[in-house]
This record gives sequence, structure tokens and C-alpha cells, in this order.
Amino acid sequence: MDLVEFLNKNNNKEVVVVQGLGFVGAVMSLVISNSKKKDYAVIGVDRKESIEIIDNINNGIFPIKSSDPKIEEYYQNSIKKGNLLATYDVSAYSHASVIIVDINLDVQKNSDSKGNLNSFNVDLNPFKNAIRTIGQNCKEDVLILVETTVPPGTCIKVVKPIIEDELKKRQLSADKIKIGHSYERVMPGPEYINSIKNFYRVYSGIDENSSLETENFLKTIISIVEYPLTRLVNTNATEMAKVLENSYRAMNIAFAVEWSRYAEEAGVNLYEIVDAIRMRPTHSNLMYPGIGVGGYCLTKDPLLASWAKINHFNSNDSLEQSEKGVKINDKMPHYAFEFMRKVFDLDSMINKKILLLGVSYRSDVGDTRYSPVEPFYLNCVENKAIVETHDPYVQYWEEINVKVSQDLNKKLSMSWDIIVFTTAHSEYKNPKVISKISKMSNVKILDTLGILNKKNIIKLNKNNKVKVLGRGDI
Amino acid sequence: MDLVEFLNKNNNKEVVVVQGLGFVGAVMSLVISNSKKKDYAVIGVDRKESIEIIDNINNGIFPIKSSDPKIEEYYQNSIKKGNLLATYDVSAYSHASVIIVDINLDVQKNSDSKGNLNSFNVDLNPFKNAIRTIGQNCKEDVLILVETTVPPGTCIKVVKPIIEDELKKRQLSADKIKIGHSYERVMPGPEYINSIKNFYRVYSGIDENSSLETENFLKTIISIVEYPLTRLVNTNATEMAKVLENSYRAMNIAFAVEWSRYAEEAGVNLYEIVDAIRMRPTHSNLMYPGIGVGGYCLTKDPLLASWAKINHFNSNDSLEQSEKGVKINDKMPHYAFEFMRKVFDLDSMINKKILLLGVSYRSDVGDTRYSPVEPFYLNCVENKAIVETHDPYVQYWEEINVKVSQDLNKKLSMSWDIIVFTTAHSEYKNPKVISKISKMSNVKILDTLGILNKKNIIKLNKNNKVKVLGRGDI
Repeated sequence: MDLVEFLNKNNNKEVVVVQGLGFVGAVMSLVISNSKKKDYAVIGVDRKESIEIIDNINNGIFPIKSSDPKIEEYYQNSIKKGNLLATYDVSAYSHASVIIVDINLDVQKNSDSKGNLNSFNVDLNPFKNAIRTIGQNCKEDVLILVETTVPPGTCIKVVKPIIEDELKKRQLSADKIKIGHSYERVMPGPEYINSIKNFYRVYSGIDENSSLETENFLKTIISIVEYPLTRLVNTNATEMAKVLENSYRAMNIAFAVEWSRYAEEAGVNLYEIVDAIRMRPTHSNLMYPGIGVGGYCLTKDPLLASWAKINHFNSNDSLEQSEKGVKINDKMPHYAFEFMRKVFDLDSMINKKILLLGVSYRSDVGDTRYSPVEPFYLNCVENKAIVETHDPYVQYWEEINVKVSQDLNKKLSMSWDIIVFTTAHSEYKNPKVISKISKMSNVKILDTLGILNKKNIIKLNKNNKVKVLGRGDI
Repeated sequence: MDLVEFLNKNNNKEVVVVQGLGFVGAVMSLVISNSKKKDYAVIGVDRKESIEIIDNINNGIFPIKSSDPKIEEYYQNSIKKGNLLATYDVSAYSHASVIIVDINLDVQKNSDSKGNLNSFNVDLNPFKNAIRTIGQNCKEDVLILVETTVPPGTCIKVVKPIIEDELKKRQLSADKIKIGHSYERVMPGPEYINSIKNFYRVYSGIDENSSLETENFLKTIISIVEYPLTRLVNTNATEMAKVLENSYRAMNIAFAVEWSRYAEEAGVNLYEIVDAIRMRPTHSNLMYPGIGVGGYCLTKDPLLASWAKINHFNSNDSLEQSEKGVKINDKMPHYAFEFMRKVFDLDSMINKKILLLGVSYRSDVGDTRYSPVEPFYLNCVENKAIVETHDPYVQYWEEINVKVSQDLNKKLSMSWDIIVFTTAHSEYKNPKVISKISKMSNVKILDTLGILNKKNIIKLNKNNKVKVLGRGDI
């Protein structure tokens, strides 16, 4: 079905265009097209390079694999309703009363092979170009709702002038445009849909009318009775809220990282210490250390924030702590690798057969973007080990062009020198895994994430041919 | 009553000696002497320099002023029971079956007048000397329970060898000594007693017997049914847990500090942003910014931790994030002062009449140790302002030899150029305070802590002669 046909078929519906069909935009499109409060026609627009995703959406294959059954349920319902279309045709923008911006805004990191972040840069041009495309096509009174995590100040200092500029070029009024900002808190995984529909939202607009229209739109897709909306005073505030919350999380993980090294030096188990401390309500959010931090947000948002502090608000000081958090986290997979070599006395890794269980950056999700398993994997390969990988949610590891096995039984029946738990997928917590491991011989197992509990580790280690180490054990 | 008399009178009771009668030891003594599970004779030992505290305790005047009515209730009960004595006579240790170490262990900070922490040092000698005094007097099978926050590694690397050394010098066995560690989580304030008796405890010992005896003792003073004890594997682990939890808190405050400056630069109110984010359960512990961090613990514990990492465990790396947290927090009162000058356009402070409401580092407590109000006060004085102070819990500000008023009504009836809310005491939230302020003229008011709510600030600012600024308002 092409755009004209789709619009004819849905001609009684308000058109919402979602710009960007990634982990947020694709699922956002589903949620909007399934709104029970308003009947929308939803058009997902992505670049021509993403033709495979576009075609898949239009041909009955949803491009995101997820442990949330609602994803497929919503998608099938969208197909039945016929109110969801994907396209790269930018003329779609001209039909929208609401345009949601869900594109990427990346940080360019300059890091060495040990994970040291030497410098970074934020190139706003791809984002600006995408916004310009909207301005070149949109109605003069459209609501542009930015969900992308942007450097604070972006809606006012970047989006607004570009849109106004393009409207003027088309002899249209620049006074009727509405620009809102409401960042998503999407959590790919078993609660994917709920993390959009049933979760708290913060929003704002560049003026009163923009705020109001943003609120009116969000009301139709979010369960606002259970999860009341919070309006902040302007887009600077909501943009800052988003990067602040991710910086907070990144820094708290980095804190656990720094202390996990300390615990190893002092010969104590940090997991047990953290468990003891978390009984205090004021400390219940203390994090456990792991193999590292990955994903699209925590690895860059603190840097976006720091960049904007200087570049949008002329500050003399960067956000030292938040930047430091990213720097520490970036080094963690390298440290986990060195830790493995040390505790298993691996002077040489040459031809060692290593199985990595999990390549996704997060449990029960198929998302390998900035996965901490990547540097860990590369470290193994650089040291000439033979590495294979398993992940129930990933068939092909795009970032480094690696085929990933989905057959855990088969992999656990083969012989390995080392098995490393690298992602905390639920599948790995199945008692069958313990049982398989207990029958192995001459294998070293490193649990970087506390997946095998202490009792199991003690039990497994009674088999002299298996050596299991949890992260806190030395 | 002298020691011999006291022991005679209590000759059927097990003797517990508490070393150090400060904010922890004095109240710990009360809790032990009021135990309903075991009948103890409690002797608080402090140095001769603290004779005033010792005499007060023995003469019906409890040395700590608190908003917790249980303090006085417990104290009166101890007097009635006659099982509490204070002394500087070190022979008291020789009668104890349990000795609790509640002395200070300080960090020496080398900071400049702007609050920049240039370097720091940990001098263990005063602590070592106190432990040596115990070793010179104690029974060979005493339980020494360290509650002092110490650099991780201290019980094993410092306490144990000193005690063993002194026992050997006295021809006693060094094999029967028991050393435990269980850090307190005392919160001076309205829940002072409960923060000892009704709160979670983590404990450990240098060996199995030490752990067991520590547990047996703690059972008699803590409500362990509601607040189960957590045993960790050794004293390194519990020592680390304590400094970790305070470092976590200090770092999270520093995070709020850094972002509050950002919010000011971007012209948004950080309180509102934090409120919006705290709706997420994972972010509910996000802190609000304030005038700074004070008190005995958060200002030094991260440094103790970092010092021990290098000095007790031979690490090459300090705890960068935790040290950074202290550094940022130390600068905050200076920044609050500069903020005040900026927002009120105070080119000159000469002869400005300034009232500081609250000198304690914490709300509803009379504790001025390392109060952030101190550098704020000193900044005002250095700039030749005329500064007066009020605090319902502090009559005399020992650290800087300043008399503090207790009469809020009188102070609010005088004329001031500037009033600053510097401690969040409940008394300041009384509507009468708002009412008094609304009748003032030509006064500038800075609420560094969010004491006056937004509605009140808007209302007060309608009086043209009063200019009120909350911390997020610019």
C-alpha cells in the first residue's frame, strides 16, 4: 500500500508521523496506532537506507524481537486496523497534525583500545538535517513532539529556529508552530509496551500552547490516571531531566565499578556488602557491579549533558562527575577481561575455546548497541582465543558482524576452556544450565553478573573438574 | 560515686565499657544501660579533657541536646537504675566483658579559603593510642567491639596487633581476645535512640568466636526481630560497607550539587526537575541540592576509604569518584555564598546585616561539626558583613566561638538586609515565620534549602519590600 492509498483508507483519522523507526519509534508507532482514546493513522518515516525495516513493517514482520508478547499483539492489531504504514517518503510529514521525533542523536567517542575515553564530540548535523526535512514539509500549525534525548537547550536553540526558517522559506507563518518535548523512558524487554503506555511522563513545550497540545496528545496514548503527567516549565527543563536521570544511573553504576575493584583488592565480596547496605531505604538503589554498562543511553547521555552545558549555556565547567561515570564504565569490560585472565591464571589465551553467554547489553532484550560484551569479545579475539557466542534474542551481532547461536543446549554440550556469563538473560538462570555445567570437565566458568547464586557456585565447585567464580570471589 | 562504689553497687551485672562519650558513645551508653534483655553495668570512659561531659553525665545533666524525647527518658531511667557511670579512669577497662569503641578517627584536610581540598591525611595515632589503652587494661578474653568508622582493614591490621602486643607485655594469652566490628548508623535528631535500637546492623568479627560474641551482644541491645542482623564474612567487609554507604551518599549529594549549577546556568529550577524524576522507583533516592554537606561522616568517610585502599591494601588507584564527591561538596557553601551575592547584586557586603537561620549541619539536631554554615558564615564575616545567627538547638557555636540566639521571634522582629535559611529546622517551617517575613520591609531572603514552599515565595514576593529567592529561582 502506498502513502496515497493509506491516507484515502484512513481519511477520517488524524495523522501522526513518527520520525525514526528504531527501538523507540517503531514501538511508539504501535502504541499510537493502538490508542483506544483516539483513532490515529500512524505513518512511520525512516531514511531510505532503512528500507528493510520499512518493508518488514509493511509486510507483516515487526523488526524488533522482544520478550514482550504485547509487541506482537499490538502489531497484529495494527495490521488488522490498517492504520499503520512505514515509508521513506518525506511528503508524509505534510499530512501530519502531530510529528514525533524519535531519531538518534549520537556522541562521537574517541577511545583507545583499552576503553580509555580520550575525548568526545557531539555532531548535531544529522539531527539538524532531520529536523529540516520536517520543516520543509510540515503544516504550519503542526505539533512537533521531540522524544529524542537531546543536549539540553536543543528545542529552543536548534529545533525552533530551523523549523521557523523553513516555514518562512515556504511563505508560511512561523507563529503557529507548536514544539513540545517529552522524553521517553522506553525499556526494551518484557515490559516494552508498558514502558511507554504505563509509565510516568515528563513534558513541556516552547510556549503555553505547545505545552497544552503536547499534553492533549500524550493523554491519548498514556494511562495518565495511574501515571500522572508532570509538566515542567520549559523544554530546557525536560531536556535536562532526561540526561540528568541517565547520568545519575551511569554515575551510580560507575560507583559500584570503582568499589568492586576495591573489594577485590581487600579480598571481600562486594555483592554481599551491597546486599547488606540495600536494607537501608535511603540506599535501596545502590547498584551491583557487572561486566559493564551498555545500550544507547547511559553510555552517551552524560556526555550530551556535559557538552550542552558548555556549548548551549556557555558554562566554564563540564559535568566532571557525570563524564567520569562514563569513563569508568567504558573501561569496565576491559577490566572484566583482565580480571578473568588473572583469576584463571591465563598467561596465554591462544586457541582457548571461550563461550560467551549473552551478547545483548541488557537481560531479556536483543539489543547489542554499545554492548559491554563487545569490548570483552574483542579482547578475547585480539588475544587469539577462539570465541563463540550465544544469545536467545540475537541471531546476528551487527556491530561486529558475528553470527550468534540460539541453541543453548548444543553449546553447553560442546567442550570449552572457559564459559563466561556476559548477559543476565532469564534463560541462563534455568536449573538445567546448572545441571549441564555440573557434568562438564576441565572448564572454568566466570559469572560476571551474579547469575549463578552462591549455593550453586559452592555446589559446582565440589566437582573438581569445574572451577566457577562469581564476580566477588577471589 | 566513684568506680569502686559503682562496681560494688552493680556487682551482679556484666560490665560494658563504652570508650568515647560523643554523639555515638553517650547515646550508645544509654541504650545499653536500658537493655531489657540483659542487665548491664555501663561505664562510659572518655579522656580527662572531657571532664565536663563526664561530670555532667554523673550529675544529672545529659550532655547532648536532642529533639528525641527518648534521650531524656532513657537517661532518667539509667539514673534510677544506677547502672551508668562516666569516668576518665582507664582501670574501668579491666572490669569489662565488652568494650565498645566509639572514639573519633579524623581526617586532616588541607583546604584553602575557597573550600578547595588540596590534600588530606589520615593520622591513625590518636586511634592507636586509644586502642593501646584498652590493651594495657583489658581482660584477655574481653570482646572489643569497634563501632568507630575506620579505614577498611583497621581491625585486622591495626587493632588486633596492638591488643595482642599489649596482652603479651602483661604475660597474658593473646589467643582469647575477641574483636568485632559493627558500625553504627546513628542519626542525631528526633529518632536518635531508634537509630541505634531499631535499625539494621551489619557486623563481623576477626574470627568465628568474635563474630558469635558480637552477635550475642548486639542481640541484647537491638530489636533484631524487626531489624535482623546481617553478618559479613570479616571485618574488612563491614569496615568497607560503612565507608561505602557514606561515600554513596556523599557522591549522590555532589551529583545534585553539580547539576544545581547547571540548572542555574540553564535558567531552570532543579527542585522541580528532581521532583519529576523521583517518581521513578529507580530514581527515588535522587537528592536535592542544598547549602552543602556537613557532619562528621559524609565529609570524611570517602577519604578514609580512599586512604585505606592505598595504605592498607596497596592499591595503585584512589577512589576518584568518592574523593571528587567530597571535593565538590566542600565547595558548596562557598558557591552558595557567591550565588547569594550574584542574585542579590551585592557588590559590597560591608556592614550588611545578615541573619542566618540555623547553624547545625542537619535539621532538628544541635550538631555543628563540619557544618556547611560555617564557611558560609566565615565568607560573610570576611566580607565585613554583620552576621547574627539563630538555632533552636545550639547556644554556643564551639568551632568558631560564636554565641547563637535561641529567640526566633526576637530575631525576626529586628531589621535585616538579608536573611538566609541555612538549616532546615522544623521551627522555620512554622506559618508564623512566613507571617513575620511578610511584614518586613527592605529585606532580601535566600532559602537555600527549599524551606519556604513555592506558593509562599510567590505570595511573599507580592510585597514589594521583600525579595525572596528559593534555591532554584533566578
